[in-house]
Amino acid sequence: MEETVKQLHAFFNPRSVAVVGATRKVDKAGHVIFKNFVENKRRQVFKGEIYAVNPNENSVLGVKCVPSVTKIRGDLDLIVIIVPANIVPQIMKDAATKKVKSAVIISAGFGEVGNHDLENEVATIAREAGMRVLGPNCLGVFDSRTGVDMLFLPETKVLTTGDEVVATPRPLPGSIAIVTQSGAFGVAALDYLAGLHTGVSKFVSFGNKIDVDEAEMLCYLYHDNETKVILLYVEDIKSGRKFMEAAQEITRKKPVVALKSGRTDAGARAAASHTGAIAGSDKIYDAAFEQTGVLRAQDMDEFFHAGKALSMQVPAKGKNVGIITDAGGPGIMAVDECGMIGLTVKRFSEETIAKFEKLKTDGKLPKFATNLNPVDVTGSGTSEMLEMATEILFQDPEIDGIIMLGLHQMPALQEDYVDKVAKVASLYEKPIVACDIGETEMAVSIRLRFDRLGIPAYSSPEDTARAMSALSRYGLYLQKKGYLQEYTKNFLEKKRKKQAKT
Amino acid sequence: MEETVKQLHAFFNPRSVAVVGATRKVDKAGHVIFKNFVENKRRQVFKGEIYAVNPNENSVLGVKCVPSVTKIRGDLDLIVIIVPANIVPQIMKDAATKKVKSAVIISAGFGEVGNHDLENEVATIAREAGMRVLGPNCLGVFDSRTGVDMLFLPETKVLTTGDEVVATPRPLPGSIAIVTQSGAFGVAALDYLAGLHTGVSKFVSFGNKIDVDEAEMLCYLYHDNETKVILLYVEDIKSGRKFMEAAQEITRKKPVVALKSGRTDAGARAAASHTGAIAGSDKIYDAAFEQTGVLRAQDMDEFFHAGKALSMQVPAKGKNVGIITDAGGPGIMAVDECGMIGLTVKRFSEETIAKFEKLKTDGKLPKFATNLNPVDVTGSGTSEMLEMATEILFQDPEIDGIIMLGLHQMPALQEDYVDKVAKVASLYEKPIVACDIGETEMAVSIRLRFDRLGIPAYSSPEDTARAMSALSRYGLYLQKKGYLQEYTKNFLEKKRKKQAKT
Repeated sequence: MEETVKQLHAFFNPRSVAVVGATRKVDKAGHVIFKNFVENKRRQVFKGEIYAVNPNENSVLGVKCVPSVTKIRGDLDLIVIIVPANIVPQIMKDAATKKVKSAVIISAGFGEVGNHDLENEVATIAREAGMRVLGPNCLGVFDSRTGVDMLFLPETKVLTTGDEVVATPRPLPGSIAIVTQSGAFGVAALDYLAGLHTGVSKFVSFGNKIDVDEAEMLCYLYHDNETKVILLYVEDIKSGRKFMEAAQEITRKKPVVALKSGRTDAGARAAASHTGAIAGSDKIYDAAFEQTGVLRAQDMDEFFHAGKALSMQVPAKGKNVGIITDAGGPGIMAVDECGMIGLTVKRFSEETIAKFEKLKTDGKLPKFATNLNPVDVTGSGTSEMLEMATEILFQDPEIDGIIMLGLHQMPALQEDYVDKVAKVASLYEKPIVACDIGETEMAVSIRLRFDRLGIPAYSSPEDTARAMSALSRYGLYLQKKGYLQEYTKNFLEKKRKKQAKT
Repeated sequence: MEETVKQLHAFFNPRSVAVVGATRKVDKAGHVIFKNFVENKRRQVFKGEIYAVNPNENSVLGVKCVPSVTKIRGDLDLIVIIVPANIVPQIMKDAATKKVKSAVIISAGFGEVGNHDLENEVATIAREAGMRVLGPNCLGVFDSRTGVDMLFLPETKVLTTGDEVVATPRPLPGSIAIVTQSGAFGVAALDYLAGLHTGVSKFVSFGNKIDVDEAEMLCYLYHDNETKVILLYVEDIKSGRKFMEAAQEITRKKPVVALKSGRTDAGARAAASHTGAIAGSDKIYDAAFEQTGVLRAQDMDEFFHAGKALSMQVPAKGKNVGIITDAGGPGIMAVDECGMIGLTVKRFSEETIAKFEKLKTDGKLPKFATNLNPVDVTGSGTSEMLEMATEILFQDPEIDGIIMLGLHQMPALQEDYVDKVAKVASLYEKPIVACDIGETEMAVSIRLRFDRLGIPAYSSPEDTARAMSALSRYGLYLQKKGYLQEYTKNFLEKKRKKQAKT
């Protein structure tokens, strides 16, 4: 495993990189990728050496071109190949001669369009030279910290109107890694996470995976200090046993959320014509994920939502949820969803109920607040009431996780409840997730504030319940395997270190 | 039914309204509601007479107070009551003397907190006087066109920092009506729809429903020209037979989407302590909705998404969906979701496949585009390719509806594809829904542009498939009942008239 980690490190942190197919032509992928490296180097984000390889151009963006990688002096950690498919074998032979360590083949036109011989030829050259390969037919790597950015989709696009708009943003540094078989879905994911201000550690699109596959990539990310959660999009997994062995190891320390498409017969047929994936029975994937602690998401939103929850909160020790709300209807919606997906919302303990009754007697909670679970502070709810309710539920040992529904529309509620709740939450080792409904100014800013304070927030009661479910499923898996205590300890230690830094 | 419609009209379009409990005190609901009417009148949106009733104040916002409704000269269509619960019977007696037609009782403190005698007393006064009542314990009415706005939650909120932000926006005029048992969920819904620029026709929160209930409200909205779709949130339905009779009639002409909470045992318990709802078996609701053509949403997002789809597109004649994509992965995700929720994604007819093959031969579609359903124009896809694919699928009689996944991140795709697709769509009588993934500038503006051109757009493949499912479920219901042709004809006629106007 350690050897793999060392090898794959060159993809994310090369001391030297050559872009083969670098060009001045603005619309070409070879231009965009080379420019990404040059600009990140100019900003001192990318620290390695950059070379442009193109026998037909003299220089690109001020960097002199060499006709072949063999003409480069000094060692080469990585080459990025963006040339027509039929030329790729020659490039790979040159790279082998040059003893290049690793190659990302962006070029398409291999197995995915039936050119299996060409693909095999490339794979053989790499294997014999001991070169590690990502791709072909992939988007390669984006690393938010080292400045490696092989996305050939520029961050902005110029519309037919002449307006320039953000089209493929790069998210800020964060702790979620994205590993994807579909490049297109991968960039859409970056756009999604950037828009929600969710940070990303690393992004890998492995395309036809003739060498490095999902199992090895998971191993690498397992050892990556920046990555806390791995989001994996796959259409098929070819080396099932290898994947399961790796996954079992990794999920001890890092949650893996999988979105596996091709679930239905029609979906499997579509996957087959997309990447040639032979999806196999979906139930086998279900079982494999279940057995290895990989959390399977039911749809795209759950995929991202679970990733956010697991990156911010400790797993739940069980599946009993306490719900706090200032709005009856949404409270019931959350209870319903919990019930549908296997969480429980048991009546609070007599001790907890007594605490709420005392608050009512003392005039600190509305007389007609319900408090059996959910506790509903009603439309008269204040920041203080939500804070007290949070404290009471954290203290209740029967409650494994808390769902906070603080609808900001309620007249007496102020936005400072977010800070108060987060402060209480920081004193306990139990997960909490939050919801505010609405798509205008205050709702958006309240959710963002929760996120910034480390409490993942969502826009519907059901999404919030699903996020809690991910925390509970992962917690129960870790507990069954005997790793929960250690995971929680490490998670909280890292969190405290990070807070101490900022 | 016609008598009901006439009676309920006063709630939405009163020629005269008295706010009982109008006050100068800025934090009071009686202030906010009275101010809503005064400001809407000043802007000439609200056209009726306004009276302030308060025996303890001289004037409110420049309007002289009268001590009782009996002191008002001229007829009173409507009173809005915001006074302590125990005073409400006296107010209602005065209103009966004055022969007021209808009353909205905003005040809480009745059946929902166990004061059943007080609630019964009020109901009796109203019944004997022939007065129609909304509430008590409700948010009343918001009408985007007549300026009736009883929401006591101000549009903006002042934060602890002194900043003023949008907190409970009023959506623009539109064609979706919201009928809700939960006031809090209702205002959250307004916030949600306003943020997505989805227009609302009318909003009604009926609280404890001692008189007017959901069945009557549906009847009213059935006759309302501004309303095309009705979104109904309920925790229980007391008069089941009456509701079913009304729903059966209404769904012939207008789609009704229901979000019924209290689905699970725990949810039903929560609903019971929220509104005293006796939820009954959830399966009975399922059956009742199914039988009467009411479309039940599985969660909050689907509730809104289905409403948007049905307000913009004709229903589908069947359940076979054609999918167009420029991104393989998301295409498969859409196929999967269709399969999970009962839609089919059958292999295209030989004729349709031949058309795509011809485009490939002619160099108008990438050689390696897949075209069996989905048709995947690949990352090289252009606006023209998506346009041609749309046209081909509209022409295929086997396809009942189209899902368009145009991920804007693909380098060759320009935003003008939205207009091209919408133009093609306007020539056919078959539904189309769209998806773009991402939360930054271009994704958001592309979805908004689709919406504005009458094609509902969503942010995930699965949400998009669910929206198509609502169109298909409704279409199949109408077809079974023999109303599909007439509904489609009326829908398109109205759409054309509206387009001719603008």
